[in-house]
Amino acid sequence: MNSENFSISEKIVSASYIRQGSQARRSHEQLIRQLLDQGKCPEEGWNESTTELFLNELAVMDSNNFLGNCGVGEREGRVASSLVARRHYRLIHGIGRSGDIAAIQPKAAGSSLLNKLTNSVVLDILKLSGVQSVASCFVVPMATGMSLTLCFLTLRHKRPKARYIIWPRIDQKSCFKAMITAGFEPVVVENILEGDELRTDLEAVNRKMQELGAENILCVHSTTSCFAPRVPDRLEELATMCAKYDIPHVVNNAYGVQSSKCMHLIQQGARVGRIDAFVQSLDKNFMVPVGGAIIAGFNESFIQEISRMYPGRASASPSLDVLITLLTLGASGYRKLLAERKEMYTYLAQDLKSLAEAHGERLLHTPHNPISLAMSLDGLQAQSDKAVTQLGSMLFTRQVSGARVVALGNDQMVSGHMFCGFMSHSEAYPSPYLNASSAVGITRNDVTLCIRRLDKCLKSLKKKSMAELK
Amino acid sequence: MNSENFSISEKIVSASYIRQGSQARRSHEQLIRQLLDQGKCPEEGWNESTTELFLNELAVMDSNNFLGNCGVGEREGRVASSLVARRHYRLIHGIGRSGDIAAIQPKAAGSSLLNKLTNSVVLDILKLSGVQSVASCFVVPMATGMSLTLCFLTLRHKRPKARYIIWPRIDQKSCFKAMITAGFEPVVVENILEGDELRTDLEAVNRKMQELGAENILCVHSTTSCFAPRVPDRLEELATMCAKYDIPHVVNNAYGVQSSKCMHLIQQGARVGRIDAFVQSLDKNFMVPVGGAIIAGFNESFIQEISRMYPGRASASPSLDVLITLLTLGASGYRKLLAERKEMYTYLAQDLKSLAEAHGERLLHTPHNPISLAMSLDGLQAQSDKAVTQLGSMLFTRQVSGARVVALGNDQMVSGHMFCGFMSHSEAYPSPYLNASSAVGITRNDVTLCIRRLDKCLKSLKKKSMAELK
Amino acid sequence: MNSENFSISEKIVSASYIRQGSQARRSHEQLIRQLLDQGKCPEEGWNESTTELFLNELAVMDSNNFLGNCGVGEREGRVASSLVARRHYRLIHGIGRSGDIAAIQPKAAGSSLLNKLTNSVVLDILKLSGVQSVASCFVVPMATGMSLTLCFLTLRHKRPKARYIIWPRIDQKSCFKAMITAGFEPVVVENILEGDELRTDLEAVNRKMQELGAENILCVHSTTSCFAPRVPDRLEELATMCAKYDIPHVVNNAYGVQSSKCMHLIQQGARVGRIDAFVQSLDKNFMVPVGGAIIAGFNESFIQEISRMYPGRASASPSLDVLITLLTLGASGYRKLLAERKEMYTYLAQDLKSLAEAHGERLLHTPHNPISLAMSLDGLQAQSDKAVTQLGSMLFTRQVSGARVVALGNDQMVSGHMFCGFMSHSEAYPSPYLNASSAVGITRNDVTLCIRRLDKCLKSLKKKSMAELK
Amino acid sequence: MNSENFSISEKIVSASYIRQGSQARRSHEQLIRQLLDQGKCPEEGWNESTTELFLNELAVMDSNNFLGNCGVGEREGRVASSLVARRHYRLIHGIGRSGDIAAIQPKAAGSSLLNKLTNSVVLDILKLSGVQSVASCFVVPMATGMSLTLCFLTLRHKRPKARYIIWPRIDQKSCFKAMITAGFEPVVVENILEGDELRTDLEAVNRKMQELGAENILCVHSTTSCFAPRVPDRLEELATMCAKYDIPHVVNNAYGVQSSKCMHLIQQGARVGRIDAFVQSLDKNFMVPVGGAIIAGFNESFIQEISRMYPGRASASPSLDVLITLLTLGASGYRKLLAERKEMYTYLAQDLKSLAEAHGERLLHTPHNPISLAMSLDGLQAQSDKAVTQLGSMLFTRQVSGARVVALGNDQMVSGHMFCGFMSHSEAYPSPYLNASSAVGITRNDVTLCIRRLDKCLKSLKKKSMAELK
Repeated sequence: MNSENFSISEKIVSASYIRQGSQARRSHEQLIRQLLDQGKCPEEGWNESTTELFLNELAVMDSNNFLGNCGVGEREGRVASSLVARRHYRLIHGIGRSGDIAAIQPKAAGSSLLNKLTNSVVLDILKLSGVQSVASCFVVPMATGMSLTLCFLTLRHKRPKARYIIWPRIDQKSCFKAMITAGFEPVVVENILEGDELRTDLEAVNRKMQELGAENILCVHSTTSCFAPRVPDRLEELATMCAKYDIPHVVNNAYGVQSSKCMHLIQQGARVGRIDAFVQSLDKNFMVPVGGAIIAGFNESFIQEISRMYPGRASASPSLDVLITLLTLGASGYRKLLAERKEMYTYLAQDLKSLAEAHGERLLHTPHNPISLAMSLDGLQAQSDKAVTQLGSMLFTRQVSGARVVALGNDQMVSGHMFCGFMSHSEAYPSPYLNASSAVGITRNDVTLCIRRLDKCLKSLKKKSMAELK
Repeated sequence: MNSENFSISEKIVSASYIRQGSQARRSHEQLIRQLLDQGKCPEEGWNESTTELFLNELAVMDSNNFLGNCGVGEREGRVASSLVARRHYRLIHGIGRSGDIAAIQPKAAGSSLLNKLTNSVVLDILKLSGVQSVASCFVVPMATGMSLTLCFLTLRHKRPKARYIIWPRIDQKSCFKAMITAGFEPVVVENILEGDELRTDLEAVNRKMQELGAENILCVHSTTSCFAPRVPDRLEELATMCAKYDIPHVVNNAYGVQSSKCMHLIQQGARVGRIDAFVQSLDKNFMVPVGGAIIAGFNESFIQEISRMYPGRASASPSLDVLITLLTLGASGYRKLLAERKEMYTYLAQDLKSLAEAHGERLLHTPHNPISLAMSLDGLQAQSDKAVTQLGSMLFTRQVSGARVVALGNDQMVSGHMFCGFMSHSEAYPSPYLNASSAVGITRNDVTLCIRRLDKCLKSLKKKSMAELK
Repeated sequence: MNSENFSISEKIVSASYIRQGSQARRSHEQLIRQLLDQGKCPEEGWNESTTELFLNELAVMDSNNFLGNCGVGEREGRVASSLVARRHYRLIHGIGRSGDIAAIQPKAAGSSLLNKLTNSVVLDILKLSGVQSVASCFVVPMATGMSLTLCFLTLRHKRPKARYIIWPRIDQKSCFKAMITAGFEPVVVENILEGDELRTDLEAVNRKMQELGAENILCVHSTTSCFAPRVPDRLEELATMCAKYDIPHVVNNAYGVQSSKCMHLIQQGARVGRIDAFVQSLDKNFMVPVGGAIIAGFNESFIQEISRMYPGRASASPSLDVLITLLTLGASGYRKLLAERKEMYTYLAQDLKSLAEAHGERLLHTPHNPISLAMSLDGLQAQSDKAVTQLGSMLFTRQVSGARVVALGNDQMVSGHMFCGFMSHSEAYPSPYLNASSAVGITRNDVTLCIRRLDKCLKSLKKKSMAELK
Repeated sequence: MNSENFSISEKIVSASYIRQGSQARRSHEQLIRQLLDQGKCPEEGWNESTTELFLNELAVMDSNNFLGNCGVGEREGRVASSLVARRHYRLIHGIGRSGDIAAIQPKAAGSSLLNKLTNSVVLDILKLSGVQSVASCFVVPMATGMSLTLCFLTLRHKRPKARYIIWPRIDQKSCFKAMITAGFEPVVVENILEGDELRTDLEAVNRKMQELGAENILCVHSTTSCFAPRVPDRLEELATMCAKYDIPHVVNNAYGVQSSKCMHLIQQGARVGRIDAFVQSLDKNFMVPVGGAIIAGFNESFIQEISRMYPGRASASPSLDVLITLLTLGASGYRKLLAERKEMYTYLAQDLKSLAEAHGERLLHTPHNPISLAMSLDGLQAQSDKAVTQLGSMLFTRQVSGARVVALGNDQMVSGHMFCGFMSHSEAYPSPYLNASSAVGITRNDVTLCIRRLDKCLKSLKKKSMAELK
């Protein structure tokens, strides 16, 4: 309520109580003021009532909520279902304008503020997560893969002759398709095996650059977060090479914000060499529903060019989700989540190691991968050919989700390219294995239950194979 | 509750009342059964309680809501904020898989059902809105423009040599940028003036096809819904030409679902010639928040190819919105909205005509445009150069949204292409004018208020100019 | 947002858009100002966004929502469940203080405002519904019956010798029990039959007053709204007698607010004679959940005495419900509901009359009852003894709710008093009958379905009885 | 969804995923089954999705939500505002029937189940909180005071001659008014000072019983939870006396459920003597909004008699709140809250002791009061007469809520009775003091902030008084 309404209220309810109420309101306004003023994620999380108050204030500023509005356009933010209106806090106009997804909408001051603030708060979080020198970013309501496509399409305009994208192999369909969809030819560089780890073959990359010629190469498309035993690409060296040959460099940092190591790689890559953009998933890093990504970079004008490539207005839903989440967590809450994730990684590694040893397997040694772990399944494979895939479906049935079983010798054609040893990031990895990850939001209970159920599955498979032998 | 729980309840509350309650539950289940069975929009809208019951049932089937789930993957549908979880009905996993936005997710049976059903219900609505022979469609959480880009990117793989897109001019940035972003060169075909209307120059299109050569042309990119005095493109003739030269044809049907005329054009175009895909906005046709589109077509496998081009999982939010909306409206509710829109168009035309005459202007004669109307502003222009733009800002201040004022002689560069007479779809339209549209959801009150305020503005501008004269 | 925050926002989003947003906010504030200032139900209903904005503002003023509050009392408005907090808009402190349910709470300025405004808005609605001279009222979160009890308990302190309450018979348990619970002896005055109607026996009441002696009589307890063929009590005459003998008069106006006739009776009674308090149900008159009542009267200090009799703080839930409802309906919306109810009464009467005639029954002539109708069931009774009660259960099974079947000769003991012909308000009503009411919120569809199903039931009972005869 | 719908779903989404979804649903049903079957608070709390699923299932069983219902009664559960419908989960019919607040409603099987289950779950919690032999209880949507009134009104019917209620003094208005409202004369028994504690004067009670004569005494009305330095009444001895003289005994256990000591007193009192009913607040013990109470006892038929005294249907809102809260907390969650409360009591006592000593005051020694503490303010009083009351308002301004300052010599008339030394439970307590309580839901932060702010206030008052001396 405004001051006039507080004054009238004093005639109804005793003035001193109303004054205290008005003062209490000011403390919410004060939090909002800091957010508007600094554009940073608040250190301490807001409670739900401040958050909803703020969202309601934003909604009131959009023309579809004006009490006296009359609309004779083709897009007036009308909503047929009140269930739908409510779940979007009556913020209906989406974000951006036809020319630019980061632009301000005349009809929707509130949604425009939402958009600007979200990008600003997210930028702050990228900094505190380790990429201190990031210059600009924006949230886009598309998958990481489609966002990478948008980056490639933007680069096309700057490098009209380029046809190739150099891509150290990672067996995940959407980042591969991101290049295909954009109309480029991926040049797959196989990884090299160092100990148990699969790492970037820098020499091969260098060779390809020279072979193909810089002007024919759209960019290098590297990856941080990935399933063990693959580890994050050697970003510093790749970035240095890109700088040397003047080749753009786009990093797929899908779920890397949650790991200080991944973020450090990006920060260092940009410091010593060239990184044009890095793209990360909203859902995997910020525990929001699937569907959004952040496109970030070190050169504000290039990031703006990308945002201007999105033709049309876009859904505000992912922005709204991440803004609510970051405001209610606060910077301290997010840091706490990251610290817990790291701690759970250690637990998971220990428990998986013990379990592996108990079953005659071993935890693969992949120290460069800060999130994903892999346990060999050589013994299981020795028991029977089918046992490895059986383990996968047993875990599914027992509601262990996310534990990935990788058998050997799986060849698969994806968009015209044959991947030998698909899913293992390598044409011939020595062992079949099982992956488990410690991703943001994981709990001690997740780890314990997973290990317990995995143990039971392995025992039951052993018994079964014994029985078959008799 | 299942039958066992109903039985136990009979011990607590009298059996006959519980039996009636259980029977009542069955009537909700019956509605759900019909939806699942037929995949069609229910004739009568569901009430909110059936709708929410259904959404809660879907959510229960997703792994993030399993009571005994343990997750060790990198994407487990965890949600940090309960505000966010609630607003998505705990449906967190989005839609599609890395390979295909229409694919089923093992972790999310409920979200997968949601996705399949939404596409199926939307297909039903496209049919009842006039495109009876549509074969397939899917909802994509992207703007109409970006969805057009996806169509163009898909066509590229089928027509590797093609560089051009033939595009009858329409002055709306995002559909132009859709071609630029996809990496093609738009070939702008100016419209021809027939009476007050701006219509497709079929001869010019034909000429361009011959000039450029079919294999160099990615597609024709035509438009239905648009601002008067431009009218929907001559789809039948364009489709016939496309068929003749074997050139793909993509139709921007942005807000055309709401108009039986636009839908009829598409149906006819596909019948007599070639239409590969037509794209429409969710928000403009179904009164949901901005951010989604429907990509539809007459050849199921081509539409599937497009859906397979989206790299990554996508937001379920637009699908959820349109499903809730169509279930609660029902087919009859949607038809009613369309009928009301048509009726309001008549009112708006009449009132605007009277107003125009009262101010010495005229309602442009644009019978081929079923949604948008234009009133000349020649007299206003004559008063003063600035008056026309002033009118625009006066209407904005008076909360008349969507009334577009188009001055003459506005030249603008968009992504490297110079548009003379920008916003008027023509290099030299004879009159400045004001647009008003009768779009779905418009009310009698919108029309009345708009006319009243417009009248006041025009009077006040006249007075002002009189005063200046003295 | 306050003006400072709007100013900062102008740096983020263009100033003119923010200014329009801020102006839009003011129009909500303006509505709130009117409410606070006048304490009346707004003529036009508020939309949900203004309503929720207002409730959130109230909540912010309660100490449990202060950002810096620390609580070391035994009642701090803490809430364990966020589901619960949300459904109460975080208004947790209830209404009133230990001494007075209408009092202001120091810890809860927002809830106190809610309480005061609700009572004020409800008072306004009582006036516009026909009791123009009502002086004071308050909402109490108790059933109508329990609220009557509270009135009787208050009167006890003013009339220590009184033991009796004179009560023209109405066969509804809770108003009878209201007297028993308060510790008084109801003096039941049988109604007299005038035509089909059962009306107050004024002479008998007069006789009882003289017999018992005024000082031994706590009050007359009369009734307006009731099931036909009983009709509202003759309030004017009763009020005149009460004035003459100096006996208090409490009116049970359970669902009478919805009928201008009932309200007129109260207004007239108070004008010509004495009415100390009249009590009405919230749910039956305002379409809110069961559980609240309004205690109203013509002497402010007496109503205040009643409010001071409630020991302890009380639930704000019924107040919140009725405030939300009246703000969103507006006075005009409520009047519209009342007009529709009246119209439906006419339909129901016509349809019931036709149906009755088709089945050889008749619609009882009860013009003094503005809400409830009765159709004789003599023929049905003649068919078989059980048929009348069977009809009741058939209607229940067919989801016709609220249609009450009244058989003859039903004697029942209630709290020590034997009611002969229970449910018929009379020891020997000539016909069995069926009741149907046109209560606020009833729709044309309710009437149509009811008549159709009733027709089927009657036909099926006839067939059955024919079959049995054979 | 029922099994048929799951089957159809298998045609849309792969059968194995649907089967897993269906199995996941069963685990929710299993939790509901246990609740229905055992009527106990689940050991582990339900998550919000199970809770809401269950409430939606209940709502579906109420006639106002039947898809085919037609209503022609005067109370059909219609709701005008969708905001209101939603916040009550569409459970509109309230609880009970006109004859009995615990009765089943034919129109509302779901609400009836809600009512029965709430009473059953609450009974379970009373047992686990220490009153193992409680036989019956029910939730009533009235304040503790009004609920006590209902108990007294019920007893009146069993003891028609009784006029007095013996009441060991406790200075809280609503429990005093509860007796006045019921029409009885409270016989106030002053407490005796033992050390710092104010305890029941058993001899005086005994004397009064003999003086007045058992048949003239309605009951003894004792109290457990109270502000220090008063301590819970000597229930065992009172109960023994009541048994001896055959006088009913009603215990005001306002916020005693949260304390094992208070509950133990009741359990013991009932074991060795006579307790007819004990009444407790919902909000103070279960962290729900103000407005409900639990009436409980050891004799099922007497508790039923009380429930039959409530005339009319009642609000289900408090029942709904406490059911949601207990289901989501679970028994383990509630026990954890109680344990935390106890721990915080220790902290509060320690911190208050240190603070008191630092300011030359002392923590009063009140070991029999398990919740409330008192710190003397003798020094403050010595400084200045006004300082004690000033401290109260300073704490209010600094958002310390619930810290009660009790000055000496405050005489107050309440409903005709003069209380000397009002608020101190004694005609002449030796010291002024400040109260602070450790009530359920208090946090470490509450304690810390309170002590810090209290310290500042005391220092600032000292400074001020020093300054005035100069």
